[in-house]
Amino acid sequence: MTQRPKIKDVARRAGVSPTLASFALNGREGVGEETRQRILAAAAELGYRANPYARALRTGSSNSFGLLIRNLSNPIFLDVIAGAQEAAVSSETTILIADADYSFERERQHIERFAAHHVDGLAIAPVGPGESVDLWRDLRPGAPTVVLYATAPGLDDVIRVGPDARRAVRLAVDHLYELGHRDIAFLTAPRELMADHDRLDEFELACADLGLPPRPVFTPLNLAAVMERVTALLDSPTPPTAVITNSDYTAHGVYLAARERGFTVGRDLSVVGHDDLPTAELLDPPLTTIRMDGRALGRALFDRLSGADADRAGDGDPGDGAGRTEPVDHAEPVELVVRRSTGPVR
Amino acid sequence: MTQRPKIKDVARRAGVSPTLASFALNGREGVGEETRQRILAAAAELGYRANPYARALRTGSSNSFGLLIRNLSNPIFLDVIAGAQEAAVSSETTILIADADYSFERERQHIERFAAHHVDGLAIAPVGPGESVDLWRDLRPGAPTVVLYATAPGLDDVIRVGPDARRAVRLAVDHLYELGHRDIAFLTAPRELMADHDRLDEFELACADLGLPPRPVFTPLNLAAVMERVTALLDSPTPPTAVITNSDYTAHGVYLAARERGFTVGRDLSVVGHDDLPTAELLDPPLTTIRMDGRALGRALFDRLSGADADRAGDGDPGDGAGRTEPVDHAEPVELVVRRSTGPVR
Repeated sequence: MTQRPKIKDVARRAGVSPTLASFALNGREGVGEETRQRILAAAAELGYRANPYARALRTGSSNSFGLLIRNLSNPIFLDVIAGAQEAAVSSETTILIADADYSFERERQHIERFAAHHVDGLAIAPVGPGESVDLWRDLRPGAPTVVLYATAPGLDDVIRVGPDARRAVRLAVDHLYELGHRDIAFLTAPRELMADHDRLDEFELACADLGLPPRPVFTPLNLAAVMERVTALLDSPTPPTAVITNSDYTAHGVYLAARERGFTVGRDLSVVGHDDLPTAELLDPPLTTIRMDGRALGRALFDRLSGADADRAGDGDPGDGAGRTEPVDHAEPVELVVRRSTGPVR
Repeated sequence: MTQRPKIKDVARRAGVSPTLASFALNGREGVGEETRQRILAAAAELGYRANPYARALRTGSSNSFGLLIRNLSNPIFLDVIAGAQEAAVSSETTILIADADYSFERERQHIERFAAHHVDGLAIAPVGPGESVDLWRDLRPGAPTVVLYATAPGLDDVIRVGPDARRAVRLAVDHLYELGHRDIAFLTAPRELMADHDRLDEFELACADLGLPPRPVFTPLNLAAVMERVTALLDSPTPPTAVITNSDYTAHGVYLAARERGFTVGRDLSVVGHDDLPTAELLDPPLTTIRMDGRALGRALFDRLSGADADRAGDGDPGDGAGRTEPVDHAEPVELVVRRSTGPVR
């Protein structure tokens, strides 16, 4: 097969005009059932595949979704992608993935590219509070937008999907408090890059409840920056006795910094991660972390992007969201997994 | 901006016909320089973006490349993707990523989708020996094909990019032999899924050179399958004293199996990984592995996909590939990093 069959080949084989063949293949009305079946059979026999560019020009839809990640270096996003693709397999949908690498400029470029490709919806783990979502909505008004791992304050008409951030922070703080820690550092992005204010808000609330001074540490959340910042922290006159991170990925930077400065994790410095990556239990020492099902998060993301969630909600149990036709936000449940990276304060 | 400017808006602003505007914006000949400048200025003022679908229909090119990965769960591919995107940033190119998840069927579906989207080239880490590359070439004859992490025997006109697999295997076997190991298991994919015969060939050669019985272990290379297979191996009457894996990712499965069966890694069972992921040095015990620069691999991949390699080669040093106009295969250098997961045989 070196020549792609074209619609005129399908039409010839079915004995109809190309226009009629096109109508049938695109499910438009005005084609008799028997003729439609004959055209579909001819298309199947020839292995005809519709040209998505032609379809996109005609319908404005490309049967694809964009997934724009602020930091694809973090392996948790692999689970999220796997879950989304799992959900997408049965529908004829392509998920296009791109990495903003913590750059506002690259984020905007990717959004422009996605919009130009006519993706039908955008899921975005934004670099900052989500200003580039406005660009997306200017370019593709009405297309669904799912905001991932972000509070996105001030954005209406977006669906939010992420872990239960407030509960995750509270679990970590309470666990460390019970171990006797009173000086807890909390790693968070610089304000201008911060996507999820809920984490910091909840940390400050939890500290207030427990009478602790909050100690947020603002740092870009890539591995090198975390390592450098935590090394400086451990060199300070009053290093914290514990560190809460936003991911196992950044927790690796804390391990590296602790090792560099001769602090033993779990004894001199307690560390709490987030995500329970496959490696978390294999680290030295095994990492106390917040477990979250990244694949489930990815499935929830796809359902909301594609509208499957709203469809299901409409058919749902009368006692459980009946009549709901709009997708709703999704907070993935979290739980604390205690391992040896956290211990009693010394 | 709720209405995308169209080419006719650009034409009106520049005071030319839409056809002339289109010619100028697509760099075709027959447009006077002053007129061309006026049209480009009008396009810039209006924020006009070419519609890639229209361009793809017209030129057959979409300014995008497909990257099809057999197992996106392995974090090394994040580095490869990051490197490729790094190289792609300066050109106006989108890299579309998809995951075959070790399924031949999904691999073929993704290739059909990529071809239908008119991607200009395909980079593929194939599930098996690369049969689906034939499908790709039927659908997109003449488009460049880069085969990643695979020998792809019998495939002509493909460019191969990967780590120096033969040297990686030899480094691992020699290291274990020097530590006294004479019974070394070698994890490799089942023959029908095997993408890289070089690894197994080299293992058998190295064993023959050293007078060792080769002990290949054929298993699907996902975490669960590796863990199950290695657990069975450790339960056998004659467990090996060392295991060589194809990646740090699969080495995690060996760690989990060893732990489950009460074997201490580095003492009862030596383990060699491949990739030197950021976590390798943080594991308990730190992992002996083959270091490879995944980002450099990704950059090499993009250069070959886009033809940048051939362009550069043509301008190159006379003593160093002068006159070369075709991209060549790339074997990324590897080195052994010895840590505590390997020790003297007991």
